[in-house]
Amino acid sequence: MPKIVDHEKQRQIVAEAALRVIRKYGLEQATVRNIAKEAGLSVGSMRHYFCTQAELFAFCMSLFVQRVQNRVEAFSIEEPFLPDLKRLLLQFVPLDEERVMEMEVWFSFNAKVLIYPELKKISEAMQDGFYRAAGFVIEFLLTNNLAKSGLDTDLETEKLYALVDGLAIHQLMQPGRLTVERLEHILDQHLNLLCSGD
Amino acid sequence: MPKIVDHEKQRQIVAEAALRVIRKYGLEQATVRNIAKEAGLSVGSMRHYFCTQAELFAFCMSLFVQRVQNRVEAFSIEEPFLPDLKRLLLQFVPLDEERVMEMEVWFSFNAKVLIYPELKKISEAMQDGFYRAAGFVIEFLLTNNLAKSGLDTDLETEKLYALVDGLAIHQLMQPGRLTVERLEHILDQHLNLLCSGD
Repeated sequence: MPKIVDHEKQRQIVAEAALRVIRKYGLEQATVRNIAKEAGLSVGSMRHYFCTQAELFAFCMSLFVQRVQNRVEAFSIEEPFLPDLKRLLLQFVPLDEERVMEMEVWFSFNAKVLIYPELKKISEAMQDGFYRAAGFVIEFLLTNNLAKSGLDTDLETEKLYALVDGLAIHQLMQPGRLTVERLEHILDQHLNLLCSGD
Repeated sequence: MPKIVDHEKQRQIVAEAALRVIRKYGLEQATVRNIAKEAGLSVGSMRHYFCTQAELFAFCMSLFVQRVQNRVEAFSIEEPFLPDLKRLLLQFVPLDEERVMEMEVWFSFNAKVLIYPELKKISEAMQDGFYRAAGFVIEFLLTNNLAKSGLDTDLETEKLYALVDGLAIHQLMQPGRLTVERLEHILDQHLNLLCSGD
C-alpha cells in the first residue's frame, strides 16, 4: 500500500522547521538542505511541498498572519471596555519571548519583500489586520458613546495604528528603555485621551 | 612618486558605490566584486578600505546617520514654532524619492543587525537621534509655555517618537493609503493636542 501523505500537514511541518532554522541561525541559513535536516525529511522530498524558497517564505509568513488573526478573533470586549481594547491592540506588540521571536522573524521576511514580490501581499495582509484592529477600537469608542465629540475616525485610526506599531517596533529594538509597563501606560493614556480629552 | 591616496575619501567612494548597488539590486548583491565594479576599483584593492562586509555596511549606515544629523543641525525654529517643529520631525520621514530609497536601504541594513552585531550600535545611534528630536520638541513646547499643563515629558517624548516612526514606516510601506498630506495632518493635530488639548 502506498504511504498516504497529508500534503497540507507536511507543508506545515516543513514551514515550522524553517521557522526554527530562521530563529536559530537567521534567514541566510534557511537553505533547502538545512530545513530538510531540521524537518527530518530528505532534500529531494522538499520540492513536493514548496517549489521555491519564496513560496516557503510566503507560507511561513501566512502562518504568522493566521496566528495573530486567531488571537484577535478569540477576543471579547467587556465592560469597562478600555482595558480590553488595550489588550486587543497589544496582540500586535511583542510582549513575551515567543512573540519577540515571531516579530524578529517577521522583520527578516519583510526585508525580503523587495526581492520576493510574492511576500508583499502577505505582509500587507498583516498590516491590514493591524489597521482594521485600530479602526475597530475607534469605531467601538464611537458606537458606545465613549469617544469625545468631534473625533475624526479616519485620522484617529491611522494615528492609533502608527502609534501602536511604532511602540511595538521600539519595544522590540529598545526593550531597555521602552518597558512593557511604559508601553501599556502610553496606550492607557492615549485611549483615555480619545474618550475624555484629558 | 607614489600615488597619494586619500584613504577616508576612498572609503566614502566605496560606500557610495555600495549604496548604489544595494539600491539597484538589493543587499544580497552587495558583493565585493559588484561594489568594486561599481566604484571602478579592482577587487583586490577593496580590502584596503574595508576588511569585512560588516565594516562596509557599518560605514554605509553611519553615512545615513550623518546625513540626518546634518539636516537636523541645519534647522532653526522660528515663530509660529509648530510648523517648524513639525518640519523637524519630518526629517525622519521618507517624504521624497531620495529619502524613500535611503529608508529602504536602512531597513535592509537593520535586518542584518542580528547577524552583524557591529551594526547594532549604529542603528541605535539613528534611533537615539530620533528619540532626542522628539524630546527636543516636547521640551521646546514646555520651555516656551506652549504645552498644556500637566504634560508628562517622558511619556510624551516616547509617544511622539513612536507615532512619527510608525507613520514613517507606514508611509514607506503603504504610500497609497497614508499620503504625505495625511501624515502631516496627523502631526499637526498631535502637536496642537500637546498645546491646547483640543
